[in-house]
Amino acid sequence: MRVVQVPLGPRSYSILIGAGLLAQLGAHCRKLDLGRRCAIITDTNVAPRFAKAALGSLRDAGFEPALVIMPAGERAKSLKSATACFDQLAAHRLERASFIVALGGGVVGDLAGFVAAAYLRGIAFVQVPTTLLAQVDSSVGGKVGVNLRAGKNLVGAFHQPQLVLCDLAALRTLPGREFRAGLAEVIKYGIISDARLFQRLERDAGKLLDQEPRTLAEVVARCCEIKAEVVGRDETDSGPRAILNFGHTIGHAIENSAGYGRYLHGEAISLGQIGAAALSQELLGLPEADAVRIGKLLAAAGLPTRIRLTPKHRQSLLAAMKLDKKVSAGKVKFVLAEKIGVVRWGQPVPERALQRALDALAAPT
Amino acid sequence: MRVVQVPLGPRSYSILIGAGLLAQLGAHCRKLDLGRRCAIITDTNVAPRFAKAALGSLRDAGFEPALVIMPAGERAKSLKSATACFDQLAAHRLERASFIVALGGGVVGDLAGFVAAAYLRGIAFVQVPTTLLAQVDSSVGGKVGVNLRAGKNLVGAFHQPQLVLCDLAALRTLPGREFRAGLAEVIKYGIISDARLFQRLERDAGKLLDQEPRTLAEVVARCCEIKAEVVGRDETDSGPRAILNFGHTIGHAIENSAGYGRYLHGEAISLGQIGAAALSQELLGLPEADAVRIGKLLAAAGLPTRIRLTPKHRQSLLAAMKLDKKVSAGKVKFVLAEKIGVVRWGQPVPERALQRALDALAAPT
Repeated sequence: MRVVQVPLGPRSYSILIGAGLLAQLGAHCRKLDLGRRCAIITDTNVAPRFAKAALGSLRDAGFEPALVIMPAGERAKSLKSATACFDQLAAHRLERASFIVALGGGVVGDLAGFVAAAYLRGIAFVQVPTTLLAQVDSSVGGKVGVNLRAGKNLVGAFHQPQLVLCDLAALRTLPGREFRAGLAEVIKYGIISDARLFQRLERDAGKLLDQEPRTLAEVVARCCEIKAEVVGRDETDSGPRAILNFGHTIGHAIENSAGYGRYLHGEAISLGQIGAAALSQELLGLPEADAVRIGKLLAAAGLPTRIRLTPKHRQSLLAAMKLDKKVSAGKVKFVLAEKIGVVRWGQPVPERALQRALDALAAPT
Repeated sequence: MRVVQVPLGPRSYSILIGAGLLAQLGAHCRKLDLGRRCAIITDTNVAPRFAKAALGSLRDAGFEPALVIMPAGERAKSLKSATACFDQLAAHRLERASFIVALGGGVVGDLAGFVAAAYLRGIAFVQVPTTLLAQVDSSVGGKVGVNLRAGKNLVGAFHQPQLVLCDLAALRTLPGREFRAGLAEVIKYGIISDARLFQRLERDAGKLLDQEPRTLAEVVARCCEIKAEVVGRDETDSGPRAILNFGHTIGHAIENSAGYGRYLHGEAISLGQIGAAALSQELLGLPEADAVRIGKLLAAAGLPTRIRLTPKHRQSLLAAMKLDKKVSAGKVKFVLAEKIGVVRWGQPVPERALQRALDALAAPT
C-alpha cells in the first residue's frame, strides 16, 4: 500500500493506494475520529459491484452504515439528487458526528461530497473512488458540487475528505473506454509539472493500459502526489491551483456543447489538451516537438485527438467557453505550457488564436 | 451610526447600526473588495418596501444589481427556492467576484446566505436585515441554511457575510407582533451573558416597545456585541456557541410541532425560555426570583409565557426534541442558567425534569 499525504493543516488527510483496499475500508475509518452511524452514497452502476463489500467492511468495524443508491450518470449530479440524499440522511438520523462514504466515480464523489459539505452544515466524508479519473483527480482536493442547467459544477463547496481510499482492483471492472478516459488526466499531470512522469508514460503506456500492477500503483500514486502538492499550495482555488485545468477550458466546452454526442470527461480533456498545446505553441513558445509528443501520447492512450468542426460547432464551442466558471470580467483565461512539465496559468488568449487552435483540433492527423 | 466588529481573523467584518443606513448600502459596499455585478435576494413582503432604495443605492455606487424576489415565509427556506435563486444568478452571469445582498428577515438572510455559500463554491454576501430578530441574531455569525421536510436548518454552511447593515428605520414598518418576537432574542442575550442588559430591559421595556431611537440603537448594538463575542470564540459551533440556544430546544419543538397554530420563532423562544428557566431552577439552582424576573420581562415585552398542553401536545413536543439537530448519541442537551447573566451549555436533562418543565409552561400564571 502506498500513502500520499495532502498537507492542509488541520484539514490534512491521507490517500491510500493499493489493490484490495476496499476490504479494509472499515478498519481505516476506525482510525479516524468518527461516529458509528454513516451512509454510503453510490450509484446504480457501482452498487452491484462494490456495495456489499463496503457495507460488510464497515459493519465488521462496528459502524452502522445506511446505503443510498442514486441513478448513474452525470444527470444525477443535480440539486434534485442532493435533496433526495439529504432526505435519506435525515431519515437514517445521521448526526453531526456521522459520516458519508462516497463510493464510485467522479459524479458520485462530487455529489456525495457536496451532500457531506451541506448536511447539518458539514459532516465528515471518506472518498472511495472506483474509476481511474476519480482516483487521480476528482476524489482529491475537496472540490465538491453539483451542476445547474446553466453549467457544470456551478454549485458546491470546498470540503476536504478525511481519507481517500483508492482500491486499484476496482479498476479491473471498469470498461476499457472509462479507464482510457482517466489516462487523459494522468497525462495532464506530466504536462503541468513532471517531465519525468511524462517520459515514463511514453515508455510504459502499454503496461498502463494492461493495468500492470506495479506501473499502475506507481503512476496513480505519483498523480496523487502532484495533485496533493498543488492543492496544498492553493486549497480554495485562488490562483496556482488553476494549472490543474490545463486542457479543461476547451474540454469543458466540448463536453457542454450540443452536437458532440457523449464524450466522456477524459476524452473531452484529451481534445482540450491538443487545443491548449496549439495555443501554447503560438503564445508561449511551446516547442513543436513537445506538442507532437503530447498528441502522440494521448493517441497511444487510445484517446481522441481530432474532432469534427462545422461552423455551427465552432460557434457553440466559443459561446460555451465564454460561460466558463473561470471567466473573470468577461475574459477567458487559459493554462498554457512553456514546455512539457512547466505551465503558466491566467494566460489571456485572443479570439483569433483560439480560432487557430480549433483549426488544429479539426486538422486531419 | 454604531459599529460592532465581529472578530474572525481573515473573515472579520463590521456590523453597522443606525437609522437610515439603507440609503448608504452602495457606499459601504464600495469600501469592500467586490466586483461590480451583484444580486439582491429579497421576498415579496420586503421588496415593495425596500428594494427600490437598495437598488438605487447600489446603482449610484457603480454596481450592477439584479433583483431576485422569493415568496415570503418559512416555506421559502427550501432547496427548491435555493435552486430558483441559483438559476437566476447564473442567468444574470454572476461571477466569483460578484456578491449577494440579503435584504429581509431571518428567512431571506438564511436562504440568501446559503445561496452565496454554494454558488460557484462560495461568493461574498452582505446582510441587510430588516427585522429586529434578524438584526440582533440571524444576520450575524455566518450560520446559513435551508430546511428539509425532516426539520429546520438541516442543510447549510458556515459562511460569514462581508458586512451587516442594520437600518433601524426599517423596524418602524414591521408589524408590532414581529417586533415583539424579536425582543425574545434580545432578552435572551441578557440571560446568557449580561445581567446589566437584563436590568436595562426591565427598566426600558416601554421605551423599547416604542422604538425610542437611542434605546433601540443601544440595545441592538449591545446584542450584536454579545453575539459577535460568542461567535468569535466558536465560529463553527463546536461548543461555547451553544449558549445562544438558551430556550431554543423547547422553542424549536413548539415551532415544529403540529397543533400549535403558527407561533413566530421569537414567540416560541419566549416559551422555550420559560421552560429552560424551570429546568434551570431544578437542575442548576437558578434562584426562583430570577425565574420570576425572566417570566415578567417576557410578559412585559408582550410575549407568550404559557401554553396549552394536552397529553397529545406533550407527546409531540417530546418527540420533536429528540429530533433536534443538537442531539448527540440520541441525548438531548440543554443550555441552563445559574443566574441571570450566567449559563452553562451541554447540560443533560432527565426526561422527568423535562416533564416538570412542561408542567410549568402549562401552569396558569
